[in-house]
Amino acid sequence: MSESIRISVDAMGGDKGPRVAVEGARLFLRERRNVTFIFHGRAPEVEPLIAEFPELVPISRVVHCDNVIAMDDKPSNALRKGRGNSSMWAALQSVKDGEADFAISGGNTGALMAMATFCLRPIEGISRPAIAAIWPTLRTDIVVLDVGATVGGDAKQLTDFSILGAALARALFDQELPTVGLLNVGTEEVKGRDEVKEAARILQQASGSGFAYHGFVEGDDIGKGTVDVVVTEGFAGNIALKTAEGTARQVGTYIREALKADIVSMVGAAIASQALQALKRKLDPRNINGGVFLGLNGVVIKSHGGTDEVGFKGALGLGYEMARNRVMDKIAEGMRRFPTLGNAAAVPVTVTVTAAAEPEARPA
Amino acid sequence: MSESIRISVDAMGGDKGPRVAVEGARLFLRERRNVTFIFHGRAPEVEPLIAEFPELVPISRVVHCDNVIAMDDKPSNALRKGRGNSSMWAALQSVKDGEADFAISGGNTGALMAMATFCLRPIEGISRPAIAAIWPTLRTDIVVLDVGATVGGDAKQLTDFSILGAALARALFDQELPTVGLLNVGTEEVKGRDEVKEAARILQQASGSGFAYHGFVEGDDIGKGTVDVVVTEGFAGNIALKTAEGTARQVGTYIREALKADIVSMVGAAIASQALQALKRKLDPRNINGGVFLGLNGVVIKSHGGTDEVGFKGALGLGYEMARNRVMDKIAEGMRRFPTLGNAAAVPVTVTVTAAAEPEARPA
Repeated sequence: MSESIRISVDAMGGDKGPRVAVEGARLFLRERRNVTFIFHGRAPEVEPLIAEFPELVPISRVVHCDNVIAMDDKPSNALRKGRGNSSMWAALQSVKDGEADFAISGGNTGALMAMATFCLRPIEGISRPAIAAIWPTLRTDIVVLDVGATVGGDAKQLTDFSILGAALARALFDQELPTVGLLNVGTEEVKGRDEVKEAARILQQASGSGFAYHGFVEGDDIGKGTVDVVVTEGFAGNIALKTAEGTARQVGTYIREALKADIVSMVGAAIASQALQALKRKLDPRNINGGVFLGLNGVVIKSHGGTDEVGFKGALGLGYEMARNRVMDKIAEGMRRFPTLGNAAAVPVTVTVTAAAEPEARPA
Repeated sequence: MSESIRISVDAMGGDKGPRVAVEGARLFLRERRNVTFIFHGRAPEVEPLIAEFPELVPISRVVHCDNVIAMDDKPSNALRKGRGNSSMWAALQSVKDGEADFAISGGNTGALMAMATFCLRPIEGISRPAIAAIWPTLRTDIVVLDVGATVGGDAKQLTDFSILGAALARALFDQELPTVGLLNVGTEEVKGRDEVKEAARILQQASGSGFAYHGFVEGDDIGKGTVDVVVTEGFAGNIALKTAEGTARQVGTYIREALKADIVSMVGAAIASQALQALKRKLDPRNINGGVFLGLNGVVIKSHGGTDEVGFKGALGLGYEMARNRVMDKIAEGMRRFPTLGNAAAVPVTVTVTAAAEPEARPA
């Protein structure tokens, strides 16, 4: 039996209150026994929920905290109001203090990124954190980053993201030398933004140091699974992620409509219902819930604010695998291996999150 | 009976040679009688193809041209080698000379954009052309631009694209006041790239002049059809387009696999086959083939290089509707209505296409 993974939960994050976090923890416990939880939040709300599930009681601790960050707080406001005294901050602080192996929150993405950056600080040598998504493809799951932490991004940041993404792929998918592709508008060398071309030159030289540089990839290479790690800056990455979500939902609607078009189709759909259920599970966003904050001194998982306990369980699983497979060690190792990093100018650490995207904020 | 639409065809463009263009023209003729064709290309190859279809003979003219732009020529090379004497150039020249109402090519996108920009020149007041995609959504078809003409784009270009896209929506969808949204990583005013925020300020003031400004939209708003026109620069737009294509293909593969999983599913799928065929048609990229070059003094349609005659027919239909509904007049009208344009500094016309994306170029 491997050692226990200690999980720090912002129980107050998310649109639906603490029940999602507590029930998600209970579901997760059915799959993994060797975990303990610290729930940060309003004890009068959280404790009765835990009491409902006797299996949670012996492995859970509630740390009371009155202050809760609202889902629509601006990151700067959240940081001002919630620094040091909110359930979100307390969840992060547990990781900083070495009491937990990772923190998880379903709260406001921008606020969480701002607080995590302030509390845990970027890893030395990494200028900015990224949000990585685990993206299901026709081949296998892959890592795509940055999907919304920072708008824009120079060549240094793109190479940072390559180190971080490759370390995550090594941790989650047990790959020795993950392939890395730079997202671009064409696969020819002459195309694209200048910073992307510059990053390509750096990665070409560094290829073999913890990852294999594949070259440029295009938007449709993501779904194909052409590479293990797709690297881009947060504007294009966020748009790619949400466009894919929107397209999957659109096609899902087409399927439902087509199979309800007439009685014969409905009969056929009823007979093929098992296959269609399998398809539905494959397209269920709850199974791939969880954005990973990479580049900080600690593992932080952002669960989708609107998800339910099944989705929260999925996000817990993601953090569990990262902690168990020592992603922080793999990042450190990746940075040691990367040849040009030693020469890179030290970038001062800033904690202003200029424009963190919030994957869960959707117009009605 | 409305007046005839005259179509100038680069018969040599596309991966599959002139047969696709000629057969596409024949298929199109079954739907619309009031058209004539000028086919530019190698007469010994093109003439026998036309002779196969007697209905094409009286309405077609072949203009011989030996020089053909290769699918992998760089735009700068293509321009040097093919300016004035290639089938692609000749197709554009017919539009410039007033002999044709629009030009169509299945050739190299970057080369076509470079040549079209050089031959037809940008409309006065528009600094750069854009490639617009007609995007099927859960509501109705919408316009998304730029999907790859220019990487980057300042606030002026984004407002230009709004005028152009709104004019296209008015022409194709018969909408009086199309809604325009700026693609961003969040819908809050504080988020996103500076040029996007600046464009938002300009569009907010201009709202009502040929379009209604909706505000920011996110990637998943495209498939929902939240607005009639989605405006973005070519890097993010190209990545959104290809990510959506990749996701649709991915989900299509999941459907096929699920329905072949076992004999019961196959029986169900057979019974529901009509619905599944309808779904397949809905997802068939040939039905939405055709990128529209906007912002030049003439209508140019880019057909997908790898498409077949059905796809080429679809692209012909797109150009036909644009010409019939006088999109050039609607653009001119849009520019007159737009209040700030008169004050905008004149931007010198350049013909260097820095990084035209080629939607048809796919890694194997």
